[in-house]
Parts: sequence; C-alpha cells; structure tokens
Amino acid sequence: MRIGIINGPNLNLLGKREPDIYGSLSLKDIEEKLAHDFAGLSFFHFQSNIEGELISKVQEFGFYPETKLDAIIINPGGFSHTSVALADSLAACTIPVVEVHLSNIYAREEYRHSSITGAKCIGVISGFGYSSYCLAVNYVVKLALER
Amino acid sequence: MRIGIINGPNLNLLGKREPDIYGSLSLKDIEEKLAHDFAGLSFFHFQSNIEGELISKVQEFGFYPETKLDAIIINPGGFSHTSVALADSLAACTIPVVEVHLSNIYAREEYRHSSITGAKCIGVISGFGYSSYCLAVNYVVKLALER
Amino acid sequence: MRIGIINGPNLNLLGKREPDIYGSLSLKDIEEKLAHDFAGLSFFHFQSNIEGELISKVQEFGFYPETKLDAIIINPGGFSHTSVALADSLAACTIPVVEVHLSNIYAREEYRHSSITGAKCIGVISGFGYSSYCLAVNYVVKLALER
Amino acid sequence: MRIGIINGPNLNLLGKREPDIYGSLSLKDIEEKLAHDFAGLSFFHFQSNIEGELISKVQEFGFYPETKLDAIIINPGGFSHTSVALADSLAACTIPVVEVHLSNIYAREEYRHSSITGAKCIGVISGFGYSSYCLAVNYVVKLALER
Amino acid sequence: MRIGIINGPNLNLLGKREPDIYGSLSLKDIEEKLAHDFAGLSFFHFQSNIEGELISKVQEFGFYPETKLDAIIINPGGFSHTSVALADSLAACTIPVVEVHLSNIYAREEYRHSSITGAKCIGVISGFGYSSYCLAVNYVVKLALER
Amino acid sequence: MRIGIINGPNLNLLGKREPDIYGSLSLKDIEEKLAHDFAGLSFFHFQSNIEGELISKVQEFGFYPETKLDAIIINPGGFSHTSVALADSLAACTIPVVEVHLSNIYAREEYRHSSITGAKCIGVISGFGYSSYCLAVNYVVKLALER
Amino acid sequence: MRIGIINGPNLNLLGKREPDIYGSLSLKDIEEKLAHDFAGLSFFHFQSNIEGELISKVQEFGFYPETKLDAIIINPGGFSHTSVALADSLAACTIPVVEVHLSNIYAREEYRHSSITGAKCIGVISGFGYSSYCLAVNYVVKLALER
Amino acid sequence: MRIGIINGPNLNLLGKREPDIYGSLSLKDIEEKLAHDFAGLSFFHFQSNIEGELISKVQEFGFYPETKLDAIIINPGGFSHTSVALADSLAACTIPVVEVHLSNIYAREEYRHSSITGAKCIGVISGFGYSSYCLAVNYVVKLALER
Amino acid sequence: MRIGIINGPNLNLLGKREPDIYGSLSLKDIEEKLAHDFAGLSFFHFQSNIEGELISKVQEFGFYPETKLDAIIINPGGFSHTSVALADSLAACTIPVVEVHLSNIYAREEYRHSSITGAKCIGVISGFGYSSYCLAVNYVVKLALER
Amino acid sequence: MRIGIINGPNLNLLGKREPDIYGSLSLKDIEEKLAHDFAGLSFFHFQSNIEGELISKVQEFGFYPETKLDAIIINPGGFSHTSVALADSLAACTIPVVEVHLSNIYAREEYRHSSITGAKCIGVISGFGYSSYCLAVNYVVKLALER
Amino acid sequence: MRIGIINGPNLNLLGKREPDIYGSLSLKDIEEKLAHDFAGLSFFHFQSNIEGELISKVQEFGFYPETKLDAIIINPGGFSHTSVALADSLAACTIPVVEVHLSNIYAREEYRHSSITGAKCIGVISGFGYSSYCLAVNYVVKLALER
Amino acid sequence: MRIGIINGPNLNLLGKREPDIYGSLSLKDIEEKLAHDFAGLSFFHFQSNIEGELISKVQEFGFYPETKLDAIIINPGGFSHTSVALADSLAACTIPVVEVHLSNIYAREEYRHSSITGAKCIGVISGFGYSSYCLAVNYVVKLALER
Repeated sequence: MRIGIINGPNLNLLGKREPDIYGSLSLKDIEEKLAHDFAGLSFFHFQSNIEGELISKVQEFGFYPETKLDAIIINPGGFSHTSVALADSLAACTIPVVEVHLSNIYAREEYRHSSITGAKCIGVISGFGYSSYCLAVNYVVKLALER
Repeated sequence: MRIGIINGPNLNLLGKREPDIYGSLSLKDIEEKLAHDFAGLSFFHFQSNIEGELISKVQEFGFYPETKLDAIIINPGGFSHTSVALADSLAACTIPVVEVHLSNIYAREEYRHSSITGAKCIGVISGFGYSSYCLAVNYVVKLALER
Repeated sequence: MRIGIINGPNLNLLGKREPDIYGSLSLKDIEEKLAHDFAGLSFFHFQSNIEGELISKVQEFGFYPETKLDAIIINPGGFSHTSVALADSLAACTIPVVEVHLSNIYAREEYRHSSITGAKCIGVISGFGYSSYCLAVNYVVKLALER
Repeated sequence: MRIGIINGPNLNLLGKREPDIYGSLSLKDIEEKLAHDFAGLSFFHFQSNIEGELISKVQEFGFYPETKLDAIIINPGGFSHTSVALADSLAACTIPVVEVHLSNIYAREEYRHSSITGAKCIGVISGFGYSSYCLAVNYVVKLALER
Repeated sequence: MRIGIINGPNLNLLGKREPDIYGSLSLKDIEEKLAHDFAGLSFFHFQSNIEGELISKVQEFGFYPETKLDAIIINPGGFSHTSVALADSLAACTIPVVEVHLSNIYAREEYRHSSITGAKCIGVISGFGYSSYCLAVNYVVKLALER
Repeated sequence: MRIGIINGPNLNLLGKREPDIYGSLSLKDIEEKLAHDFAGLSFFHFQSNIEGELISKVQEFGFYPETKLDAIIINPGGFSHTSVALADSLAACTIPVVEVHLSNIYAREEYRHSSITGAKCIGVISGFGYSSYCLAVNYVVKLALER
Repeated sequence: MRIGIINGPNLNLLGKREPDIYGSLSLKDIEEKLAHDFAGLSFFHFQSNIEGELISKVQEFGFYPETKLDAIIINPGGFSHTSVALADSLAACTIPVVEVHLSNIYAREEYRHSSITGAKCIGVISGFGYSSYCLAVNYVVKLALER
Repeated sequence: MRIGIINGPNLNLLGKREPDIYGSLSLKDIEEKLAHDFAGLSFFHFQSNIEGELISKVQEFGFYPETKLDAIIINPGGFSHTSVALADSLAACTIPVVEVHLSNIYAREEYRHSSITGAKCIGVISGFGYSSYCLAVNYVVKLALER
Repeated sequence: MRIGIINGPNLNLLGKREPDIYGSLSLKDIEEKLAHDFAGLSFFHFQSNIEGELISKVQEFGFYPETKLDAIIINPGGFSHTSVALADSLAACTIPVVEVHLSNIYAREEYRHSSITGAKCIGVISGFGYSSYCLAVNYVVKLALER
Repeated sequence: MRIGIINGPNLNLLGKREPDIYGSLSLKDIEEKLAHDFAGLSFFHFQSNIEGELISKVQEFGFYPETKLDAIIINPGGFSHTSVALADSLAACTIPVVEVHLSNIYAREEYRHSSITGAKCIGVISGFGYSSYCLAVNYVVKLALER
Repeated sequence: MRIGIINGPNLNLLGKREPDIYGSLSLKDIEEKLAHDFAGLSFFHFQSNIEGELISKVQEFGFYPETKLDAIIINPGGFSHTSVALADSLAACTIPVVEVHLSNIYAREEYRHSSITGAKCIGVISGFGYSSYCLAVNYVVKLALER
Repeated sequence: MRIGIINGPNLNLLGKREPDIYGSLSLKDIEEKLAHDFAGLSFFHFQSNIEGELISKVQEFGFYPETKLDAIIINPGGFSHTSVALADSLAACTIPVVEVHLSNIYAREEYRHSSITGAKCIGVISGFGYSSYCLAVNYVVKLALER
C-alpha cells in the first residue's frame, strides 16, 4: 500500500519550534518512526512552505492526471484555516484523504478551531502528537482492507 | 485495561437515524464489535440523553471520588457544541479522555464545527464512523503502554 | 387518532407564572380543554423540565423502536432556543411534528426569536395562547384526513 | 364576519413558482378554497407587489379612517424580513392581525428566519401550506366568538 | 419662497397612530399650522406610502429636469433606515434638503438609530414633534436669506 | 430576437447624476446606442423607480402568464443590494437573465458589494459603463445561437 | 429563617477540581461551615448536575405550588451562561433569589462573563470563594429583618 | 429665560480646526452671535475638555441640588459616541436638554453615527453649523412659551 | 481598619436620580449609614465625576508611592463599562479591591452587562442597593481577620 | 493587440473538476477557442497554483519594469477571495485589467461572494463559462479602439 | 529644538506597575535619561491621568492659539483605544506628532490592538520600552533636519 | 553586526507604486541609503512575493538550522494582515525581529490595522517611510550594545 504524507508550512521545523506544543520529534524522526512502525507500507513524504506546491502535490498524488497513490495524510499547518485553494484541490481527490494535527486545535487560539481543509477530507484527527499520524495510517489501511 | 465508552443524546438510535450520516450500525453493534476487535480489553458502556447523567458518569469514571477506569472515550453528540457544564467535568478528569464523532463535524452545519467539550480532551477524532472509536482505543492503549 | 402533547421546562407552572404573558390556564386546564374540545381524539400528555427526558419521549412517541402515535405537538419552552440535541431527535421523527408557543416569540427578547427545534418540525404556531395547541391539533387532524 | 386577506410580492405567482416549496395551488385556488371551506364568512382579497400599496391597504382595512373589517390575515412574503414601514402600519391596527407563511421560515435560508412584521401581529403561523391560512381563519373566528 | 414638504409611509396616520410617540396632531393639522405659523411662505405637501413615488417627487422638486422649489423638508419615516434608492435621489438634489423626525430616533429601537437618507441631507432634526418641521423651515429660510 | 432591458431606480437620471461614476450618457442615449450598435435586434425598454413595477415587468417579460421575450438584461440599481422580492421574481424567470452594472460594485461602498438579485441571474457584468449592456447583449445573442 | 442553597453542575466536586480557581473547600465543607457560621438559620441544600432537576427544585423552593422557604441562594455553575429554561424558573420565584459564584466570572473566559440566570435574580455576588455564600446569606437575612 | 450652552472637547478650537467641517466661526463668535441674535435671553456658556467637568456642569445646570436654568443646549463633541457617564447625567436632568452638532454626524465616519448622549435628550439637531445652536434656542423658547 | 470608598460619576446624585433604580438614599446617607453600621472602622470617602481623579485616588489609596489604606471598595458607575485606564490602575493595586453596583447590571441595558474594571478586582457585588456596600465591607473585614 | 490571460489555482484542472460548475472545456480548449474566435489577436497564457508566481506575472505583464502587453484578463480562482497581496499587484498595473469567473460567484458559497482582487480591476464578469473570457476580450478590444 | 513629551494615565506609576510589561524605569528615570541621551534638546514633560488635561496640553503644545513647540511625542496609555476626543485634538496639530508605546500592543489583549489616536499621528512606535521614546526623538530630529 | 532586511510582496515596486503613500525611493535606493547611513554594519537583503519563500528566509536567517544573523528587520507588506504561517515562523526566531511599515497602518484601510505578524516581533514601527527602517536599525544596534 502506498501512502502520501504531506506536511505544510513550518512543519519542516518540528522539534525546534515550540516543542511543548508540537513535541520534540523532528519531521525526519516522524518519517523514520512511521517507516519503523508500519514496516510493510510505502510512504511518500513531501513538505513545503508554499501553498501552490502543496496544491500541486495533492493534485499529483490524488487525481492528476491520475492517482499515483492509495491514500493521502495531510497536515496543512497554518493553511488549514485560510486556504480555500488548497481545500479545493483536496475536494477533487479520488483517493481517501485524512487530515491530522499534532496539537488539539480546539484547545488553542480561536482562529485555529475551524478547518477549511478538514471539511474536504474524510475526517480529522487532532491532538495526539506523532500518534495522530499513526491513527490516520491505521485508518487508511483498515479502509483498504475493507474494500 | 479498563476503558469507559460514554455516548450522548440520540446515539441510542444509531442504525435507525439517518444512516447515510451515522452509518448502519446500532449502538449495540458498536459495543459488540469493540468487544470482538479488542478482545483483551474491558469496556464499560454508558449512554444517556440527559446532560447531567453524562456529567455524573464522567465524574464517576474519571476522578470522583477516585478514578475507576484507565481512560474515557466520549461521543457527546449534540452536547459537544453547547454544554459548558459537560466540558467543565471533562476538564477535571485525571485519566486520558478522547472525543470521537462518527461524522466529520467540519463537513456539516456551521454550528457543529466548534466543540466546547473537545477543547478539554487530549484530542478529537471525527469522521471515520465506527473506526473513530477504534482509533481512540488504539490511542489510549498505546498511551498506556508508553507510560 | 392518537396525538402526543409534549411540554418542556416550566410549563408545569402555567397559570401561575407571568399570566400576562402565558395566560391564566394551568397545564391541567389545557389538557382538559383539549379533551373537551376534541372529544374524539386520544391525547398522550407529557411534561418534563429535563432535556433528556423530553428527547427520550420524542423518540418513544415518534420513531423508536417504532412510532407509537400519529402526531406530536411540542412546546419546547426555553429549550427551543438552545437545544441542538432535542432538535436532532425531532429531525428523526417519522410522524408529523408541530411546534407551538403560547406567546409570540417574535415580540419578546431577542434570544427568543430563533428556534433551533422549530426548524426540524413541519411548522411553528406562535402567539395564540391556548389556541396555539388547538390550531396544531386542527392541522394534524386535517393532515391525517388528507392522506 | 369580514376578513381581509393580504398577500405580498410574488404571491400572485403561486402554483407556478417553485411548487415544491410553495405548493401547487394558485392564489386564485386559495381564494376559492377559502370561500368553500369557510362558507359563512366574507373574505376581501388583496395582492400587490408594491410595498406602499400593501401599507395603504393595511391602513384601509385596519384603522384608517376607521376599521372596515374584523380581522386581517397577511402573508407579507419577502417584505416580512425587510420592511420597517409595513411593520409600522401593522403596529397601528386596532383589529386582530395574524401573519402566515406557506413554507416553514425556520427551515429555509437564514435571512428568512426573522420577521420584522410578525413582531407586530398577534402571532405567526408558518409552514403548513394552504392550511396556514385556514388555521389563521380558525383563530380569528374563535377570537371573535370569545369576545 | 417655495418649500416642499415630503412625508413618507404611515405619516398620513398622524394623530391616530401611537400619539404618545408621534403627538396628537394629524398630518392635516401640521400642514395648517405650518401655513399659519409661516404665513408668507408657499408649501407644497406630498405624502405617499410608496417608495418609488417619494423618489419621483424628490426628483421633481429637487432637480429633474430642473428644480421646481427652493428647498425640501423630508420625513422619510421607516424608509430612513432601509432605502438606498431614496438616499440616492436625495444625494442628487441641487436645492437644500433637511430631514426631520417627530420622535427622537436615538431613543427608540436599535434599528431606527441609523439614517441612510439623513446622510445625504444637509442635516437632521429629530425628536421635537411638530417643532421639528418648524425648525427645518426656520433653517431653510435663514439659509435663503444668507445667500 | 427580442430582448427586454429593465433599469431600476435613479437610472432615469443617467448623464446627470455623478457622471464621473456613471458616465455622461443619458438613459435615452444608451437606448439609441443599443439600437444603433445591434441593429437587427428588438429592444423593449423599461425603467422604474418602483420596486413592485420592476417585479411586475420581470414577471411580464419572463414568465407570467407566459414568456413574452427571449432574454432580459436588468440593471437593478440600488435594489440589487436590498430586494429579496425582486430576486424572487428573477428566480422564477424561464428565459435567460443577465445583471449589469455601469460601475464596478466591488470598488465602491461596502454595501454595494453584495448582489441579492445577481445570485438569481446567469451572471453579472459590472464596471464597464455602457459596454456592460453591450457585453450582456453579446452574451444572450451568442447563447441563442448556440441553442 | 429557612434558606435554600442550590448548587449546579460539577459543584459536587469542589475541593478536588482546580482548587486554585474554586478553593480547597469541598461542598460538604461549605455546608458545614454555613451551619457553623450562621447557627440560628436552617439551610436546605441541593446539588444536581441535571438542569431539569435544578429547575424543579427552584420551583419547589420558590413558588410551586407555594413557597416552601424564605430565600434561595443559587450557584448555577456552567448553566449560568447557557440555560434560558433555568432563568425562566428563577424569574417566576416569589421569594428573594441571589446568585453566587466562587470565582470572579469577569476575570475568566469571555463566555463566562454574561449571566442569563443572574439577570433574573436580585443581584449577583461573584469572586469571593466560600465568602460569596456568606455574603448572600448576610443579605437575605438583612432583607428579612427589614421587612 | 436662562439657557445653558455646554460645549465639549475641542470645541474651544472652533474656527481653527478643520474649518471646512466645523465652519469658520470661533466659539467666542458663536457666543456673541447668540447674544446678538437672541437679545432678550440670558446665556450661560461653559466649555471643557474634561468629561467629568461636563458632567458636573450638567448636574449644576439641570438638577443638582436644584435646577439653576430653564434649558440646556449641549454639544458633547467626541463624547457623544463614547460616554455612558455623561449620558447618565443628562438622563437625570429635569429641565429640557437638546443636543446639537455642527456637522452632520450621519455623513461622517461610521463611529460618529451613534449618539449615546443624544438618546437621553429631547432631540438632536445635527448638520447646520452655527444654525444648529439657533434652532435649538428656537425650540426651547417655544417650549417655554407653550407651557 | 482603614477602608477607602470610591464612587464614580453621577453617584453624587444618589437619592435624586431615578430612585426606583438607585434607591432613595443620598451618597451622604450611605456614608453615614456605613459609619453607623460599622462603628469600629475608618472610612475614607471620595467621589468624582472625573475619570483621571478616580485613577489618581486609586493610585493614592492602593499603591503609590505606598499603600495608605487596607482595602478599597469602588463603584465606578458608568466608567465600569468603558474605562481601560481605570481598570489599569485597579490592576496595579496591592491591597484588596471590591467592585460594587447598586443595581443589578445584568438586568439592565446590554451595554451595562460587561465590566472592564470588575475583571481587575477580587470580585463584584451587584444589585443589592446600599447593601452592596455593606457586603463588600463584610468581606474585606473578614479577609483581614483571616490573614 | 497583445493580451495576457492569467489563470489561478486549480484552473489547470478545467474539464476534469466538477464540470457541472466549471463546464467541460479544458484550459487548453479555452486557449484554442480564444485563438480561433479572435484570430487577429495575440494571447499570452499563464497558469499557476502559486500565489507568488501569479503576482510576479501580473507585475511582468502589467508594469514592471515596464508594460509588456496591452491588457490583462485574470481569473484568480480561489485567490480572489483571500489574497491581499495579489490585489496589491493588480492595483499597480498601468494597463487595463478585467477579472473573469466561469461560475456566478454570487450564486455559490458565501465566501465566494466577495472579491478582493476584483476591486482593483476595471470590472468583473462572472457566470458565463467560456463566454466570460470572450466578453472580457470584447471589452478590452473595444476599449483600445476608443482610445 | 523643543519637544513635548506627553504621557497619559497610569504612566506616573512606571517602574512600580507590572515591571515585566512596562520595564523597571520610573517616569522620572525616563525623563532624566532622555535629557542625558539627547543633551542638546529641550524637553517639556507633561503627565496626567485626566483625559481633558491631555487634550488641553496637546492643544497648547501643538496649535492653540499658536504652536509652542517643534514636535510632540505622546504615549496615550489606555486612552489610545477609547478616546475619540483626544484623537480629534491630535488631528488638529500643525507640528509633527509621534505616538509611542512601551509594550508591543499587538502582542497584548485584543482591545489594545487598535489605536484611535495613532491614526491621527505621523506614525506609531510600539514595543521597545524606553527605546520607543528614543526612536521617536531620533525621528522628529531627523525630520527637522530634512526640512 | 549582521542584519537581515526582509521585504514582502510588492515592495520590489517601491518608488513606482503609489508614491504618495510609499514614498519615491525604490527598494534599491533604500538598500543603498541604509549602507550609506549605517556604514559599519552588514545588511543582507531579501525580497519576495512568495509567502513560502519569506517563511523559508525567516527560518534561514533566524533559527534554522541555526541563526545566521544578529537581527531581522521585516516589512511583511500585505502578508502582515493575513499570514498565519509567516507569523508562526517569526514566533520561532531566536534573534531579535522588528516589524516596519512605510505607511501608518492605523491611518489606512480597516483591514490593514491589525498585524498578525507584528504580534510575534519585539515591536512595530509604522508610518515613517524610509526612516522606519532606520529606527529599527537604531534599535537592534542599541539592543546588541546593551547585551
């Protein structure tokens, strides 16, 4: 099974930026842990600070010109709350997409409560740190098995 | 490991009410599937349409006069968006609490986007149907193992 | 024909509480007048101050595990303006539901203008005192005859 | 007994405009059905798309220079939500006025929930199609008998 | 000097409608008192409940195809708060326009505080009953003398 | 091909009112230029400052009791932003309707940005002066040819 | 003198829940301290997490079918900010009612600033911990003496 | 007849500050013109930039410990829009109070449209420059004669 | 024990201004009653209509250059709802401060519900007339004894 | 004549994404149709999902370091509603810019009604599918001829 | 060069009040440091807690009856966010005015973000403690040299 | 000392775009003037229209993988008001960051008043044209000397 992991702006700084909120793992650590914890799966990682590059990658992974992977797990970071364009691209995907957040967005600033992008995914998992990614992987694997 | 599963108003109707939104499983089906899928765990189920009874049960499970279980998974239903009192009781828990929703609350009516209660939990999992409960169980088990 | 009449919080006080707003009839008076004015019909009365009990009764009357009556007339009182959970239960009913209010909710405080529960009924009748109930009965009887 | 029925903008199109919302009866059908269903009463029908003509008719029916009828039933259509001036004229009436709506205004667009004009009537009946008019007639007749 | 007095919706009811708010003078009384109190001036009175007729009269008095009078005093009634179109016509006038209100609009319902039309006049006089008209006449006369 | 051109309040003042915003052409000039620029087409012009007359004309042109023309081009002026009733009549049309504005409504006062009526047309063309009308004619002709 | 002390949701947890906000006294401690500090008075304590039970108790203490006590002191907890129904029951009381809060609600989250229930009491005392209750007792005793 | 003229902050700068808005008369000019134009009346002028001094003067003129004058004309300047305390003092006056503004507050910035203080006066005259004061004097004199 | 009593704008008018809201006691009566009811305490009274003088007095009593008294009881009147600067000075006090209101601010106009200054005090007592002051004295005395 | 056509995010998906909203033409189809329908003109096409690239292209086409083309037609897609930065670049253009939308933005989600970028163009054409581009070309050609 | 330094409410408490926010320098320290750091300049210091005194001083320094100084540096403290009257006086100044804040107002409470007074100055410097004053002095000196 | 100067979207157009607002200096002019005015310092200039590139540069200068410079001065242009993602990157910097604006953002459009990014800097300097940069340099140099 092939899963794309897309991380948005500033997530390249994980482990360095406000570790009490985002945890002490770096993005690389997360990638390695995922590879270790889900040994039989193939992950395709992508991170960018540029909204348009994220959109292009969602398109490439998810539907344009054809699907390349089986599922997408996306952490849109700060774009979750403002990017209509990114949400538009997620809405067009023909493979399952799950949105994850390291921190509990309900327990933070008001403007982080809403998720424009999350409304276009199957569901949203928020608040469990690295485990948010794991739970999302659990789900898309299970979903694939049920099909 | 002992886990409390608390379901709020109208969830006793699962399987009958709007199955295209909430799925075709009844609450009893969910209980049996959880027992089957996580055979080694003990679940303590509770459902009520009464806000105060949910508060009392959260207190009983989670901290008053002492913790009786290891974790709580709660689906507060319609109370997620209106009950300050239920959120107050969750905030006082000394065991892990995870909020789940069957449907993706971001993709529904505006007034379902916010979650007063979710802000007082570790995290929120929303949109995966029965699997929302499973992912929450996965998480609290993993959390216990890591301690 | 069997009609459920559900009255919400503080309506047990009718006749005593602010009679210039709610009229001088007690709830018992209303029940007796309905029995007298609509002699051939069977009414099933229920009143509670507890939100969850109202939800359970709506379920019992209206769809769970099967419909027990032919129609529901509900005066949700103060819950009209705040209860998402009660509205959810009304939305699931498979028999006609009409919402009534003794006073004209448009002519009172701002926070009484909206009706979350009314949006889930066939219609709303507000401002005619005891006659609000009569008009609702007229309607559900007429509706039954037309079927 | 003499009752004025005032219908506002676009109601001359009933039966043609969006019949799934407003029903398949034309305004003429409604007038004939009322005459048939309440044979002993006199109805005085008026319809206009012009706000000021509706105001003048309310004045003429209701209080200026003297009341000409016993009651008014008004469906202000789209003016319910915007016309301060029409509400002012209703507030001045010295005979009973009831507002009716064919559709349930709570269950439609947000901007149809409020009713500036309804706040100046005895009460509001909304959502029962042609029966909204009948219930209003029922009420004003009953009111007259009680006097 | 020739002055147009334009009164908007429901002002034909003065003296009958809510005399504690609007005073006990009828519109005719006001016209006669103005004729008496300002004997040397010519008044041209116009009242309508129809928004478009008021606009046309403003145009006719004030600038289209040429000015016919020396000044306009307008009491737009309920249209003060809602009519962009009436305000547009006032803005185009090339003779002085003064807005008057019988009651103090700041001391009434919130939705009467703003005046879209008043913003397009020289000034607004509100709260002095019949005297509001007199003060406006005083002003336009004085203005003419100063020119 | 027969096209109705409907102009709303104050557009009878074109060429006189604020020519830096609306251009120096009078409404008559616009009519003559349209006749000249689109010589083979029949135009039916109508202008009114009265909301209800515009509604009636839309009905007459567009669907009641039957369509009389092939398309409508409407400039609702100040009513674009406030008239639910006019929008309702546009929604009922069974021939193509295009909304035009002389000025760019996005570049003016906040309250001119929204267009309640425009939402009920095929599209909106705003900001090109007289050319807004021409572009609309271009479009409806093209649309007719494609059918 | 007979005084009812009504405590709302989660106040059964006093002393355990967030003692830096609510103080270290348990609800039982408060009851015993009140008995000790005001030895000559009779207190009738009631606590519930259920909104409807609180409403019923307010009715029973305060006016239905007759007053049973001389005064009510109520701490509605989280319901202060959301319960229209509880406020309705307080408004109907014919004996003095005082609202108290342990913490200063103005110094906490925005959504705790308003008090729907407090608007229906004689006054509100907020921020003095256990002493909030004492001050309320002081007041109702003094009020009784002055009568 | 004795009339108090109270001017608020920055009005001591009249004639110097933004003469296109406030006119070219100084405050002294206004005082002298009033004395000249209303020769038989006694004016008592007061200006201050200090909110509390204005409050004290309103109290002294209007009711505390007894009324010293027959009427007050007040131009509260920037305090019109922000001072609850000044409005409270005006509400307590037992002699007539009229609020005046030199400029048309409806035609200026949004935050100048409302007038907290004006709601507590008999009426408001706004937009006529020096004449705003004259019209107010006209009114209070007329009011005195009518008594 | 030395207690400062600070009263804000218009409170010098107590007994004269709207006695149905504020009671019939004058400020002097309140001072004398406090002296009588709490014979062993020293009160230092200050009243001003000037915001800055209140700020200076709070500084003088409460912390600058050192505390002069043991506690402050303040009734900021209309400044409660608007004065950030007064709230800043209260926040800096190093002795206990209690805010009192004669009337129940929750039961009055919307703009009186919030209290910017109250958020910076220990607590707020509102609605008990003269007794609001007494309860505050009770509290600060009790607080001193407990230390 | 040289015209730049700039298309924003997701428009590279035309024909594939929600064809019921955006039509079945691909972006390439649109380019070829434009070339065919306006044979004598030169088009310079650019599409990007990256906000900053669009800004740079607007600068390059429209004014920096000098204008390279005669006019710009831009469809900013989802950026219309959110990008202050893109609007800033459009405002700086010294050649005509017209904004187009395939769908009628007034008839879609609330957040698509406003257009931050449209306010900085000559005008906006919305709702005519491929024809929106044609009408814009018509306009800029006409504009050039008139110069 | 002569520079006026005006400090608003509570700034007389610098060094004592919340030193983690405002720094440990007293107002006197700031005055002495300015004298030391800018030895060749003349400073005229003024501090008041009274809004009207600040207005009068701005007038005196800046334009009434003539300018007395070359520039003003003002820290309006809590009045920045609420005083329309103070902003009016700043707008009238004919010498340069710079607003300074010790703390970064963007990083504090929401109600401190806006600055009504700052909108009427050349610019605003906020967040640099004592250095905010120095930077303002740097600027006005530089500005004078450039003239 | 090494200082990074980061300029956001459209600032590459300085000198060309709206010189009455932004001044007549080009960005190159500003760079050369800074080099000239602060001869002993090293400046590292960066400008981009792409949000993600600005984020990457902030990261590179300020903390990732280690700090490369001693301070950052940033003018985020239009992103100040909308970019949560850029603010996140600024919040993570471990060297001093100062935000500057050429124009006074308080004196411009409403949507420019707030600064999401400014809240994450030490302070904000706005309104002094080129001098805003100089003052920021003054500050960071002074800050370095004090360490």
